[in-house]
Amino acid sequence: MTCKSSDTMESQKAHTTLGEYLINQLYSLNVHHIFGIPGDYVLGFYDQLTKSKIKIINTCDEQSAGFAADAYARVRGLGAVCVTYCVGGLKIVNSTAEAYAEKSPVVVISGAPGLPEKKKTPLLHHRVRDFNTQRDIFSNVTIASTILDNPEDAPAEIERVLSAAIRHKMPVYIELPRDNVYKIISNPRICSVPEFNSDAAVIREALQEAVSMINSAQLPVVVAGVEVQRFGLQELLLKFLQKTNIPVVSTPLSKSVINELHRSYLGVYEGAMGYPHVRNYVESSDCVLLIGTFMTDIDFGNSPTPVEQGKTINITSSKLSIKHHNYENVEMRDFLEKLNNVDLRKRNIDTSLKREGILALQQRPSNRDKITVDGLFGKLNDFLTPDYMVIADVGDALFGGLDLVIHKGTEFLSPAYYLSMGFAIPASIGAQLANPAIRPIVLVGDGAFQMTGTELSTIAREKLNPIIILLNNDGYRTERTILDGPFNDLYSWDYSKIVELLKVGVSFDVNSNREFESALEKAKENGREFVLINVHLDRFDASAALKRLTESLSKKVR
Amino acid sequence: MTCKSSDTMESQKAHTTLGEYLINQLYSLNVHHIFGIPGDYVLGFYDQLTKSKIKIINTCDEQSAGFAADAYARVRGLGAVCVTYCVGGLKIVNSTAEAYAEKSPVVVISGAPGLPEKKKTPLLHHRVRDFNTQRDIFSNVTIASTILDNPEDAPAEIERVLSAAIRHKMPVYIELPRDNVYKIISNPRICSVPEFNSDAAVIREALQEAVSMINSAQLPVVVAGVEVQRFGLQELLLKFLQKTNIPVVSTPLSKSVINELHRSYLGVYEGAMGYPHVRNYVESSDCVLLIGTFMTDIDFGNSPTPVEQGKTINITSSKLSIKHHNYENVEMRDFLEKLNNVDLRKRNIDTSLKREGILALQQRPSNRDKITVDGLFGKLNDFLTPDYMVIADVGDALFGGLDLVIHKGTEFLSPAYYLSMGFAIPASIGAQLANPAIRPIVLVGDGAFQMTGTELSTIAREKLNPIIILLNNDGYRTERTILDGPFNDLYSWDYSKIVELLKVGVSFDVNSNREFESALEKAKENGREFVLINVHLDRFDASAALKRLTESLSKKVR
Repeated sequence: MTCKSSDTMESQKAHTTLGEYLINQLYSLNVHHIFGIPGDYVLGFYDQLTKSKIKIINTCDEQSAGFAADAYARVRGLGAVCVTYCVGGLKIVNSTAEAYAEKSPVVVISGAPGLPEKKKTPLLHHRVRDFNTQRDIFSNVTIASTILDNPEDAPAEIERVLSAAIRHKMPVYIELPRDNVYKIISNPRICSVPEFNSDAAVIREALQEAVSMINSAQLPVVVAGVEVQRFGLQELLLKFLQKTNIPVVSTPLSKSVINELHRSYLGVYEGAMGYPHVRNYVESSDCVLLIGTFMTDIDFGNSPTPVEQGKTINITSSKLSIKHHNYENVEMRDFLEKLNNVDLRKRNIDTSLKREGILALQQRPSNRDKITVDGLFGKLNDFLTPDYMVIADVGDALFGGLDLVIHKGTEFLSPAYYLSMGFAIPASIGAQLANPAIRPIVLVGDGAFQMTGTELSTIAREKLNPIIILLNNDGYRTERTILDGPFNDLYSWDYSKIVELLKVGVSFDVNSNREFESALEKAKENGREFVLINVHLDRFDASAALKRLTESLSKKVR
Repeated sequence: MTCKSSDTMESQKAHTTLGEYLINQLYSLNVHHIFGIPGDYVLGFYDQLTKSKIKIINTCDEQSAGFAADAYARVRGLGAVCVTYCVGGLKIVNSTAEAYAEKSPVVVISGAPGLPEKKKTPLLHHRVRDFNTQRDIFSNVTIASTILDNPEDAPAEIERVLSAAIRHKMPVYIELPRDNVYKIISNPRICSVPEFNSDAAVIREALQEAVSMINSAQLPVVVAGVEVQRFGLQELLLKFLQKTNIPVVSTPLSKSVINELHRSYLGVYEGAMGYPHVRNYVESSDCVLLIGTFMTDIDFGNSPTPVEQGKTINITSSKLSIKHHNYENVEMRDFLEKLNNVDLRKRNIDTSLKREGILALQQRPSNRDKITVDGLFGKLNDFLTPDYMVIADVGDALFGGLDLVIHKGTEFLSPAYYLSMGFAIPASIGAQLANPAIRPIVLVGDGAFQMTGTELSTIAREKLNPIIILLNNDGYRTERTILDGPFNDLYSWDYSKIVELLKVGVSFDVNSNREFESALEKAKENGREFVLINVHLDRFDASAALKRLTESLSKKVR
């Protein structure tokens, strides 16, 4: 952000309090919902929020507020979670770590004791080691943090921290001493999102080298990573693909960064767990253009023959590497824009590559059979339209979900690198509020459902209508293949009864493909409330992708 | 602990692996259950646990495993929680902070990537900023931490860390790289709990001063704090009371540290929110002997006329202060033992003081009325016997619960200082496994129930039988008095239906005192499973203690 004293954005009132000022800044940055649970150190700020244009979304537990804010940030560009001191804040360290690991700009706002009371009573309730403990902890999982203990500095501090969130697409931490939220801001600043520019000489040299590599390559391929979505580079990517006809793949973390029906799209590259034709194409390529991709074990590492660095052009938000050398001060956006403005060889598209992937999805069992994981994903794939967004929790919900064909951009959300269980149901709240035009389909295992499934309560409270597909197989299925034992078993719930506990929603128990198909159709007709489809799967059934992944992981336990 | 190569304790096998070694150490320190959820980085250790004498208790979410281990530690002297790297560990930062704030020796054990894989693939799944992030975070909420990356050092490191937990009654952190759990320990050590001794000259001088103050006081009083329980000093305290007839009070955090029917016991000192006769006695005393007490705002700070330091003898595990000066190197145990061996004036007991408190509890409404918070606690007080332990969550569950008369020592558990909601139901799992002889009665508000109530699943799985009393008043009642708004409302569940979701347990919906009494009787008769009593309270009803507390807190919001 750049900030001035003028009125380039919504002007601040003359007698704005610190709390109102922060609220106005967030609202002007597209944050229209905030997730959390109040507590006495943050009640004053909650009261200010109630009187503002930002809507508070109360979740059942703070952890879910963190996950919801993360999803909101992924869909909308910025999200916020607001909690009380320590007993609230320390419940969302994990969800903030997830946002850090997967580049999601979440603003963590925490109430805190006021300055006079800290001096008067050192042992205030909720305190841990000292009054800085919570901020010290969050400094490990955020890119910037501040304690707004001085109203004079607050506008500059808010600017610094929110700028960092937007610049790096990473979480940040703002602590609000409760007495200060009522202090008047004497020097309000009007902020706008900042622009960052590359070093012209560096980008010229890098571009020349990249163009030469791309044009001389026999089998170039683009790996479109999650930063393409986070930094809003989809249009530039599409232009590049149009211009060159180079095939493109996504990764588990970036799945749906591009419409999967795009003629240049081959599929998800997942190393050893993906479709062989995608893996072979990427790993035999002589020029791999990695755009905004993290080289994670899930995305790359579980392949015994991963991408060779000497064949890569790798641009991320932090640096550009070509082969084994690095260029600093090159912005992804600038690089892609420049690439689209130079001469690049246009190739012919080999449509046979795409057909292979689509054929694989059509090999599904008949309607009379007991439902299987493969059958479930086959039916769901037929059901999907651009009206739906898929949100996958960890496990076969994710690995099976990666085979689905997503019709538009950014319609598949999952914690595919950090892999924290319990994400999907709370995330559907954030995603649907961030974009009410599309209905979430949540894929969740029974293990993850037992963690955060009660957030269907929040879904009911906010009158949202996700379709929850519960992959019910009595345990932590992914772990069973790696190393099984009674610790992988779950106590079995009658999950469908949750609609009676919550007094709203519809549920179906599903055992066959036909029942599943029928439940999906009924869910489609019922847009008024959430629909839970409890799919009873065999305890050891798994998707092909999961079987390949767990086989690879099991070699690493010892 | 002191450790030798001989066999003063259970001897270690010749070919013990690092994982087995840690398990044996924990078991010999009375840890017979461990709480957690497995993940791929900790599966090998879970497999070793399965083959050991320690029983794994799987919870639904890691947060609850943290709370359960905390309660286990409070009842049994040491507890342990075992989780996977980051996605498990970072979910229990809050429960570990609670253990830190309230002095509960919880051993946090986390799996982690193996050393070779960390070198080979920097972006392994679950990683946050770097491979030390989790340990850096836990260093803020533990007294000692270690990463067992070297099997040679492991026995000494385990000794150092477990010793610190036992010495300070604080949480500690042990990280297990997954490849190392299978490494053979070549130098096993045999450990026993250490003894610490005071400085003789210091204790002599301090004792002389303390004895003079105590003997010359007109109205001395003992405030027995939570460290009396944590450090096992109850017998020494009783001996001192017997010897002197000085009246004694507890605090919210230490409630039940002494049998509340003891003839010297006046009640819980809670500053402005307690019974006036207790408050007046303590605040007008000319010699307040604080033993193992933290001077927290909840315990002391909300009184406008708190204890004057110039009239105190204050001994804790970290130091001894008399009036405004400090003595170092004085152990609480040594000091109490010495105090019991010198001449101290024996006083007469003023029984009128005690009667006043008991009378207050008997002023209860009749059986025909709609149930009120006061009525609930009155009936429950009549119902209590030494066969029950009370575990209170945050809110009126706690504040009302403080009025109950507890019949034996250590039968009232709550996070009365850190005040983290969602503690009580998971804590009942830890408490009952730590001491199967007494049945937990859980007091929980609807807000806290929505956070961790699904752990009734774990209760069912382990065939435990707590009685859950749900104070159902449609919101965060404590906050309503401070500053109310729609953010204090909860989405209403039909809580009784949870027994259908979980396919086990019994539930009652209660609207009148008579129904409550009847439900309690049925719960008493049914010892086979959990019983949930859903008590429908008026939205604005509150205990007298809560009314006094919230009035005091509301002055601090601005």
